[in-house]
Amino acid sequence: MTEKFRQAALDYHELPTPGKLSIELSKPAETQEHLSLAYSPGVAEPVREIARDPEAAYRYTGKGNLVAVISNGSAILGLGNLGPLASKPVMEGKSLLFKRFAGIDSVDVEVDVCSSERFIETVAAIANTYGGINLEDIKAPECFHIEQALIERCSVPVFHDDQHGTAIVTVAAMLNALEIQGKKIEDIRMVCLGAGAAATACCRLMLAAGAQKEHITMLDSRGVIHSHRSDINVYKGEWARDTEMRTLDQAIEGADVFLGVSGPNLLSAEQLATMAPNPVVFACSNPDPEIAPALAHATRDDLIMATGRSDFPNQVNNVLCFPFIFRGALDVRAACINEEMKLAAVEAIRAIAHLPVPAEVCEAYGASELKFGADYILPKPTDPRLLGTVAAAVARAAVDSGVARLPYPSHYPL
Amino acid sequence: MTEKFRQAALDYHELPTPGKLSIELSKPAETQEHLSLAYSPGVAEPVREIARDPEAAYRYTGKGNLVAVISNGSAILGLGNLGPLASKPVMEGKSLLFKRFAGIDSVDVEVDVCSSERFIETVAAIANTYGGINLEDIKAPECFHIEQALIERCSVPVFHDDQHGTAIVTVAAMLNALEIQGKKIEDIRMVCLGAGAAATACCRLMLAAGAQKEHITMLDSRGVIHSHRSDINVYKGEWARDTEMRTLDQAIEGADVFLGVSGPNLLSAEQLATMAPNPVVFACSNPDPEIAPALAHATRDDLIMATGRSDFPNQVNNVLCFPFIFRGALDVRAACINEEMKLAAVEAIRAIAHLPVPAEVCEAYGASELKFGADYILPKPTDPRLLGTVAAAVARAAVDSGVARLPYPSHYPL
Repeated sequence: MTEKFRQAALDYHELPTPGKLSIELSKPAETQEHLSLAYSPGVAEPVREIARDPEAAYRYTGKGNLVAVISNGSAILGLGNLGPLASKPVMEGKSLLFKRFAGIDSVDVEVDVCSSERFIETVAAIANTYGGINLEDIKAPECFHIEQALIERCSVPVFHDDQHGTAIVTVAAMLNALEIQGKKIEDIRMVCLGAGAAATACCRLMLAAGAQKEHITMLDSRGVIHSHRSDINVYKGEWARDTEMRTLDQAIEGADVFLGVSGPNLLSAEQLATMAPNPVVFACSNPDPEIAPALAHATRDDLIMATGRSDFPNQVNNVLCFPFIFRGALDVRAACINEEMKLAAVEAIRAIAHLPVPAEVCEAYGASELKFGADYILPKPTDPRLLGTVAAAVARAAVDSGVARLPYPSHYPL
Repeated sequence: MTEKFRQAALDYHELPTPGKLSIELSKPAETQEHLSLAYSPGVAEPVREIARDPEAAYRYTGKGNLVAVISNGSAILGLGNLGPLASKPVMEGKSLLFKRFAGIDSVDVEVDVCSSERFIETVAAIANTYGGINLEDIKAPECFHIEQALIERCSVPVFHDDQHGTAIVTVAAMLNALEIQGKKIEDIRMVCLGAGAAATACCRLMLAAGAQKEHITMLDSRGVIHSHRSDINVYKGEWARDTEMRTLDQAIEGADVFLGVSGPNLLSAEQLATMAPNPVVFACSNPDPEIAPALAHATRDDLIMATGRSDFPNQVNNVLCFPFIFRGALDVRAACINEEMKLAAVEAIRAIAHLPVPAEVCEAYGASELKFGADYILPKPTDPRLLGTVAAAVARAAVDSGVARLPYPSHYPL
């Protein structure tokens, strides 16, 4: 990161006013009459209605379009555990993206507690303020238990974006990449380097999409996760294979897919060379991928590659998912975000990449044309069709799977 | 409340979109470049700065202009304990007022827990998200302990508006009323009907303003609080007088001041008639005062009266204080809101009522003129001078009393 970019980022956050968000009035509040409706005595009426029927909160307050972005700051971006307050710019950024891409009002909450149980208690206590909860930047393995406990305790959707948002976009891109490479997901052999929140969520969603568990080899920093490892937690244990393989060298040989959610430069050109013909390489470590795209393409010309970076083709970017999955969930008042809704999002994101791209989107990315193929397996974040398509697919899946409390919206596409 | 007004209040909250607030972007977020500054990778820079120095959160996030309005819904307006969710329209209304009157970004948080200790834990855990915390609609006596515990645990100002906002505006109005009646606060005999959060806070601030404790008689629903009562908590006990008086009839006779923070029609014309010459009667029960203004004025013509209602003169309205006391506190990054700041707010509010009123303010209230006197002892909420005057006085008091972390702002009046 250049010093110039660094200063631009600080200036962006500081000037002319600190932060990136403001609270604005959505109703008139100029006259004494307005104020008597907005506050005492008029406000007593919606209070009474909600006391009578809690669902009335969706009619008379902002709850139904309000998502909290909540973190304890224990795994901020790739920077580690810097504490709750330091995560605030990221959480505010996430709120900005919710509004920018899906019109969702969103506020950040940074929780400063010393244990997972206290974090769960805190979030559960305030959850009903919001229409949904997006958990963010919480380290593994605590994040698994935290998310599960909050899903059970909260009456609004709870979604840990680092797990599921990442997984949805990754699997959408993966299905498109496999299609281009002429491989079936049921047949592929996959190596997953990394065993954290994103990695395990990706592998789980790959299974839901058709991958075979016995064809997935997961590695953490100590090598292959196998059934004789005694140094792994229950979440990694789920991925332990009964195998003689111990190293990435051994695992990568003949593999169809490499999924990297680990660290910079951990996949060598030599290792890449041993993969099966027409491989798929997702090197998602940020900012430095597991293998530099230039090196990968120089090593072999039959691969399809994706990274987490916006300056290379095929960016695996969560913003393709989280605003729209919440939009769909909120619009049918879904009680949760279930597997059906996640897979519907996968299919919708994937499908958009097959369609002709609007000229203004191409222009924004300085491309004369964007067309489904090795360098375009995912839609661009600013593609205006994402909102309608993904949100509608998610809403439809929520209704069909029985977790929606409202019907499929009439203003949505059929 | 008429059915027409009732429906207008519900419509105001529901249409065209539910609620009264929206979150908007205060920075550009159109292009890929903007997004790379607002979120990854640019956002890592303010994260690092805050990890290095927590105070940097005030430079790079919205924290410094963000106040949380927090309730458990245990004492919503005069409606009682209707639970946290039912309080949401009120809390959102308070946030609307913060923005409307002082440009403060504010969000509501409703806390759903079963004990004061859990409430304290929850609020303390999220407090650092905000630049200040406004507690609201929490029932007595729990609110006293909750506020005190949170003041001790939080590094940002914590202010229970139902106590201190009410007290500040009440005492400002009282000092002006006493001035007009030619009475000195040190000499007055006062009866306080009501012994809840607002009542005790008002009496405490009256002491700070010069009233004598032995001249204040407080009554709860069982009568005079005296030193032989065994049925009162420690907070009421503070106000127990060593007296033979047991009833309002006895207490009111010869009193200079009646302060009602209780319920409708609890002060009779006969009782009013026995007060000292030139009495001050604050009948603040809402929506129905302790004595109707028409009845009070028909009973005697030497009184000055205030109520909690906007349709009578002299409305004791918290909005005259809370937006501006937080504005002043935030602008000098005060660690708390102390007695000095509260008394500075009292004096500033009081002083504005002595000044000529701008024509547009008079017009907004349908008055050809508003002039300091029996029917104008408090400024109107829409008086544009409140912001600069009260916030500046509070900021100055914070600096002078040593709780400010920033100097007195150069753009404030000297």
